[in-house]
Amino acid sequence: MSDQCIFCEIVHGNIPCAKIFEDDQVLAFLDIGPISPGHCLVIPKKHYARLEQCPADLAAALAARLGPIAQAVIAAVNAPGYNILNNNHPCAGQLVEHVHFHIIPRNPDDGLFGHWPAGKYPPGKMEQIQQKITDSLAL
Amino acid sequence: MSDQCIFCEIVHGNIPCAKIFEDDQVLAFLDIGPISPGHCLVIPKKHYARLEQCPADLAAALAARLGPIAQAVIAAVNAPGYNILNNNHPCAGQLVEHVHFHIIPRNPDDGLFGHWPAGKYPPGKMEQIQQKITDSLAL
Repeated sequence: MSDQCIFCEIVHGNIPCAKIFEDDQVLAFLDIGPISPGHCLVIPKKHYARLEQCPADLAAALAARLGPIAQAVIAAVNAPGYNILNNNHPCAGQLVEHVHFHIIPRNPDDGLFGHWPAGKYPPGKMEQIQQKITDSLAL
Repeated sequence: MSDQCIFCEIVHGNIPCAKIFEDDQVLAFLDIGPISPGHCLVIPKKHYARLEQCPADLAAALAARLGPIAQAVIAAVNAPGYNILNNNHPCAGQLVEHVHFHIIPRNPDDGLFGHWPAGKYPPGKMEQIQQKITDSLAL
């Protein structure tokens, strides 16, 4: 547990939540500030600030729950689709520094995430980035 | 393999990609229409249209790779943060109907995903949705 982490407080029952799933590693609950009805959060019970700090087996346990939970969520709110979103670092929109996956039910023309400014690399740039990534990837 | 799926064609080497990681279940490559430099996709080699259709062990294998790949990607492009985004259904922004996780490097004030219209449930609504989800959640 991390001091002053609101999600750790929720995990330990010190702050209430609208729980929808729990097992020994994972907790899921409705977001109290939903950007669409049914918007929920899936978190590890153990505190890690960022996804890349999670042990692989914990990231795997989280992800194995995402699909089934999402299916139940979109059925409950009658939405045809959903986004899974995990923000890492405040510059990426992470407000609580405890790993969490948003499940966001989606409906046609709901206006969410409409800005998708796809660009194009100048010649050679993609290969340069590819090389840098593969040079440092420790897998 | 699914006919006419561009990601299956990439998996089978019929369409080239800037590959950054591959194992027996997972392939990762740079997105050719990046919304930020280093934007890449992590996909299962086997075809599934939506995350909830992926077997749990495959979703787990994908997720276990996301953190380490993201770490290498943001190091390569010198970005402090990143989003993991997985869209399911065209209404959620899914353009290719083969499961994929976007890793999107982020920088302060890059203007991506700035619209976050957090709402509030009317009294009783959150509990009603919670009940519906837990009634149907088969986990």
